[in-house]
Amino acid sequence: MSATPEHITRGKLYTISAPSGAGKTSLVSALIESTQQVRVSVSHTTRTMRPGEQDGVNYHFVAHTQFQSMLAEQAFLEHAEVFGNYYGTSQAWVEQTLDAGDDVILEIDWQGALQIKHQMPETIAIFIMPPSKATLKERLTNRGQDDETVINKRMAEAVSEMSHYEQGDYLVINDDFNTALDDLKAIIRSARLALEPQKQRYQALLEDLLR
Amino acid sequence: MSATPEHITRGKLYTISAPSGAGKTSLVSALIESTQQVRVSVSHTTRTMRPGEQDGVNYHFVAHTQFQSMLAEQAFLEHAEVFGNYYGTSQAWVEQTLDAGDDVILEIDWQGALQIKHQMPETIAIFIMPPSKATLKERLTNRGQDDETVINKRMAEAVSEMSHYEQGDYLVINDDFNTALDDLKAIIRSARLALEPQKQRYQALLEDLLR
Repeated sequence: MSATPEHITRGKLYTISAPSGAGKTSLVSALIESTQQVRVSVSHTTRTMRPGEQDGVNYHFVAHTQFQSMLAEQAFLEHAEVFGNYYGTSQAWVEQTLDAGDDVILEIDWQGALQIKHQMPETIAIFIMPPSKATLKERLTNRGQDDETVINKRMAEAVSEMSHYEQGDYLVINDDFNTALDDLKAIIRSARLALEPQKQRYQALLEDLLR
Repeated sequence: MSATPEHITRGKLYTISAPSGAGKTSLVSALIESTQQVRVSVSHTTRTMRPGEQDGVNYHFVAHTQFQSMLAEQAFLEHAEVFGNYYGTSQAWVEQTLDAGDDVILEIDWQGALQIKHQMPETIAIFIMPPSKATLKERLTNRGQDDETVINKRMAEAVSEMSHYEQGDYLVINDDFNTALDDLKAIIRSARLALEPQKQRYQALLEDLLR
């Protein structure tokens, strides 16, 4: 009898939301690379593939007709339309991945996070916030040679996204990248140590100990 | 405006329970040394000081009469009598320490943990378990040259304590010491990242971001 887990424990679902410029995508990439049994969901979309993107990596690129039939089959946990393009999260993939024992991360805006929480209330919602408004503006400005109007529009969108932070179960401030990464890791590690998953994971050990 | 916390956030209270031989005391010592703003409660007791013990470090050693008057003043969050000696946790110290922003750990058996949870329902209860019955027996045996009867009695007590593990919010298996230590650190770190304490801690930042 050892402490090696003998039972597969269903993974946890996380939504991670943040304004553009908070560093969400880089943090999630680093998290996936450094943590076992965490996977990020790849959305389906009807928008055109951009240079450098790969089908199945950045998105599952599908035709409008295919998206519509998936929608009719209720294949999506959540979906949204942005500038005439559709985006959706495959319920089947999420469920299979969770059942296989991996945690799943959805990078998603506050509206999508709300839809997910409604469908699967046990979802853990995380909001990532920038360390100051000045930093946020700097990060949104440095991306290109955009004029003031474009930057102001981005700032307004960021503030709109951030205004929903109270939806989150956890709030991570991305001041130092590695600290924020360790924060995310701690949230995931801690959730795995909760009574219910541990009871399933160590069922045989617990029976032996109490015999 | 920086991400430096400007408000003191009330600390969290933790109970850590475990059978003898699970490594609780060593883990808590290492946790205190390696983690900022975590303090362990020192119990009051009426039992006699043993060689090597220090008043105020291992216990607050008090006379029976003093303990009884503290009891009458409801000064204890929990208390217990073991073999004619009294043990109790000072409510005033716990409250002051939490208000100062530190997390507090109570090393306590399942009965004490239950009393605490009743008094302060937001308490996070952690159970530490050994990685196997054989390891537990070995750890309880190696302590001295005790005979089989004494060891069997200790094992029975350990099983009795462990049988209450479902009271815990978290379950940590102490197979590898450093892994178990990192587990405890993750639980504490994660609790600090929950929405409510973060909202208090970063009140000024959040106001600035949403302005």
